[in-house]
Amino acid sequence: MIDVPTWVDEVTRSGGSYRGDGEKMALVIRLARENVARRTGGPFGAAVFELGSSRLVAVGVNSVTRLQNCVLHAEVMAIMLAQQRLRSFTLSAPGLPALELVTSCEPCAMCLGATLYSGVSRVVMAATRDDAMAVGFDEGPVFAESYVYLADRGVTIVRDVRRTEAVSVLEAYRDGGGPIYTARPPVT
Amino acid sequence: MIDVPTWVDEVTRSGGSYRGDGEKMALVIRLARENVARRTGGPFGAAVFELGSSRLVAVGVNSVTRLQNCVLHAEVMAIMLAQQRLRSFTLSAPGLPALELVTSCEPCAMCLGATLYSGVSRVVMAATRDDAMAVGFDEGPVFAESYVYLADRGVTIVRDVRRTEAVSVLEAYRDGGGPIYTARPPVT
Repeated sequence: MIDVPTWVDEVTRSGGSYRGDGEKMALVIRLARENVARRTGGPFGAAVFELGSSRLVAVGVNSVTRLQNCVLHAEVMAIMLAQQRLRSFTLSAPGLPALELVTSCEPCAMCLGATLYSGVSRVVMAATRDDAMAVGFDEGPVFAESYVYLADRGVTIVRDVRRTEAVSVLEAYRDGGGPIYTARPPVT
Repeated sequence: MIDVPTWVDEVTRSGGSYRGDGEKMALVIRLARENVARRTGGPFGAAVFELGSSRLVAVGVNSVTRLQNCVLHAEVMAIMLAQQRLRSFTLSAPGLPALELVTSCEPCAMCLGATLYSGVSRVVMAATRDDAMAVGFDEGPVFAESYVYLADRGVTIVRDVRRTEAVSVLEAYRDGGGPIYTARPPVT
């Protein structure tokens, strides 16, 4: 069963309403930080919001180690749970409001692909690819052209929202000896 | 619940043992063809095999429309189910035999990322990215450098195994009016 850890409800309930990218990102970083503190996965959080109303639709936290599954990054979790909730394989289906993905770190190659297919019209990021690589994660084959590809298909990209806070969560994970589950060392 | 359709058991049971890339690919294309015929998803199949013994570990068929989830491409399904079966978030964990992914079509951007993180040491493909794009699927931001990235990390890529047969399944899906669920039309 694909679901977030039980403690997530407490964090989202206490959050109340979310205004602007800053408040939405604060929630997502709180999820990432709790995920590290409770040892339920990697230092990443994500959420899907309605663009207009800022209503929270679904959240995800990295669950690779908890659920023993390499696919369950925070963004993939948030997208899967949002689509399950809205009963649609695309978040840009007719009749749905515009939706956005807010993530505590720039998506890896897999999550960037999932973001394209998800149907969100906007992605907001905190930490960068380089920040994640600096603590040991392999972010996969993402290039400048990858973002051009998404932009050409109508996806707006917003960067560097609360980046310093998100980096502090990455560093707390590294300093606590959290496992780097994406590691596939370069062949020498 | 993430699982393959019930008819998949019949196909894999009747298949017996699989020798060489050709026989493994024949199974995967049969899964793709059945998935179209039974209207349980897109025209794609995939499987994880042990490299040495050729033992079948897990299969996947595209389940985007059936399970209303954009993430559930054939490769993602096969990887998730293989990891669930082996209770490991990486298929290159110590103690596991070397494993490979056999897929009826070149992976999209999301699935190529998932392939990297999955821990398989080899990927075998039939139809190409261009073949999938020709029937309307959006394969996402994958570039020549994306494959260099995987090769640098020890993943062997094998192309064009039974490509013509795999293309005939893509065409059957298009001719039957199957939905193109990845569509996010380029902004003009």
